[in-house]
Amino acid sequence: MIYADNAAATRLDPEAFEAMKYFLVENYANPSQPYSFSREAKLALKRSREIIAECINAEPEEIIFTSGGSESDNWAVKCCDAEKVYTSAIEHKAVLNSCDAVSIPVDSEGIVKVSELKPCKNSLVSVMLANNETGTIQPVKTLAEISHSHGAIFHTDAVQAIGHIEVDVKALGVDMLSASAHKFNGPRGTGFLYVKQGMKIHSLINGGSQEFGLRAGTENVAGIVGMAKALENNCKSLSHNHKFLLGLEQILLDRLTSHELDFRINGSMKQKLPGLLSLSFRNSNGERILHRLDLMGISISTGSACDGMNTQISHVIKALKVPQDYAKGTIRISLGKYNSENDALTIADALAKVIIPTQ
Amino acid sequence: MIYADNAAATRLDPEAFEAMKYFLVENYANPSQPYSFSREAKLALKRSREIIAECINAEPEEIIFTSGGSESDNWAVKCCDAEKVYTSAIEHKAVLNSCDAVSIPVDSEGIVKVSELKPCKNSLVSVMLANNETGTIQPVKTLAEISHSHGAIFHTDAVQAIGHIEVDVKALGVDMLSASAHKFNGPRGTGFLYVKQGMKIHSLINGGSQEFGLRAGTENVAGIVGMAKALENNCKSLSHNHKFLLGLEQILLDRLTSHELDFRINGSMKQKLPGLLSLSFRNSNGERILHRLDLMGISISTGSACDGMNTQISHVIKALKVPQDYAKGTIRISLGKYNSENDALTIADALAKVIIPTQ
Repeated sequence: MIYADNAAATRLDPEAFEAMKYFLVENYANPSQPYSFSREAKLALKRSREIIAECINAEPEEIIFTSGGSESDNWAVKCCDAEKVYTSAIEHKAVLNSCDAVSIPVDSEGIVKVSELKPCKNSLVSVMLANNETGTIQPVKTLAEISHSHGAIFHTDAVQAIGHIEVDVKALGVDMLSASAHKFNGPRGTGFLYVKQGMKIHSLINGGSQEFGLRAGTENVAGIVGMAKALENNCKSLSHNHKFLLGLEQILLDRLTSHELDFRINGSMKQKLPGLLSLSFRNSNGERILHRLDLMGISISTGSACDGMNTQISHVIKALKVPQDYAKGTIRISLGKYNSENDALTIADALAKVIIPTQ
Repeated sequence: MIYADNAAATRLDPEAFEAMKYFLVENYANPSQPYSFSREAKLALKRSREIIAECINAEPEEIIFTSGGSESDNWAVKCCDAEKVYTSAIEHKAVLNSCDAVSIPVDSEGIVKVSELKPCKNSLVSVMLANNETGTIQPVKTLAEISHSHGAIFHTDAVQAIGHIEVDVKALGVDMLSASAHKFNGPRGTGFLYVKQGMKIHSLINGGSQEFGLRAGTENVAGIVGMAKALENNCKSLSHNHKFLLGLEQILLDRLTSHELDFRINGSMKQKLPGLLSLSFRNSNGERILHRLDLMGISISTGSACDGMNTQISHVIKALKVPQDYAKGTIRISLGKYNSENDALTIADALAKVIIPTQ
């Protein structure tokens, strides 16, 4: 089997699993309790917060654990008391469906048109760091600056970016940032929201005094420990993985070209996540390609996994104004650190078999 | 070590861990994707939903997976568009802090005063099935009937009860019910909300179309599978565990009495969760008892784990009007299926050592 849908879910890092095991099997203490048995769980939470903070150049107190990217996005968008929300046309549905927002368009490369952002005071601007369907990296630093100059706060959905490109919250200048563990070889069901010191946000989930009183609920210690280990490992080999995945991409693209297939690459090739390719094949059908490849043991997707049942052309592909004869033939190939050169070649050869060549 | 704080967190059922392992290590597919690799994850979700539904006499489509009890409670209370909310004075903070509610008092046994409930139309009544500090089981069936007769909807926080006593949503007549896996030997970070068919609720977490479009976010397959296995196992041995835990309680109480300690049992001894004892020792200090027992290798608590940092007399003990000379000496001992008779005796003997006997 070749798994090339790493933008939907990634294989759990074996070291992350080992770290989790202890808190699943051995130490099941509720970290909020004052007895000795809870001490390890408490320390593990503290250590995980420090590790994650270090990975994105934040302070530990700025990392609030959540159940994942969707919760983080909902929390950021719904609970900062913004009078108005501005988002890009290509945001994830966890942002788009959480608010009634003013939409900022993107150019043909899928990059948000910076000049179109004119937020009003006390509003929120939420633009993703990298798009989940095309991998295009957005000019978040500039967008955050513009937002602040208008008295607006800035949130970025970094779910697809964290653990794959360098993320420095101070350099980016964001007020809030969402992340999800299962996108960077951590476990599902855990994520975090970075909340800049001084930033006022009320709780989405009220109750106990966990997470500095900001997010109630008994902490998922095993999940959090696994998330921290996975992010630490990915960040350690960030530049190596980056180079490796760009290499795999090129191998795949070169082979596709050698097969003389008529396709276009959606999104920017300069500002992109390594390993993620959104390709549109002319006069083809993305869903059909997906199923044919599946029969050959290859897992890819047509777009966002969160919309797996929806076979319409996605809002992202529409926003990019991909020509009609290509749009329907869109697939997403997302390679990860566990893929090989042979995977890239096999995928390209499989595509050549199922796609009718240029006439 | 003797662990007697099962009301705060329980040891993960070994079979639940085995079931989880496969979806942590082997099958990491995003269940929303249409390729073969996702099939097992999709089936596991379906099967888990069926198992859980069967355990509480619900339909599978009525079980919506969440990240735990706090999320479930917040969701139920915040998202059903109630014009007013009524709760008991002894609810968990996940309910109390989620709304500005009319409080229904409890009697000296900690049982909600049914006659005091007079909800207005289009309101929500939220009363827990069993209290987390005393274990007292509430007259939920009657409260639900009264609520419905006034045109109100009824939610019960069953976090402490599920997997410990029989729960039948149809017999109880509730519209919504919250549960958390780590309270019944499942993993932390997962739970569910039962939402009766026809009940209208909007999402707390918007985004993708997971969970019948009601709760967005990539499903925590491993956690959900573990939760289902743990609940299934607990429900299978419900009456055995019930008898066993009532037995342990009696052994502990008899031994305490034989030591001639001056204490009272908080809450009802007739309507209670098996294994959970809230005891108040006269002229004692609960926190001091906790730490002395901890030094002897015994883990107990003073009250709710979600308030572990708070050393004040809890709102539950206050609502029960426990006399002042007893209230400060309150501890919670919660025995679980992995405890033994010897544990019960050891705890009682340890208490006798740290508490000054009756003068």
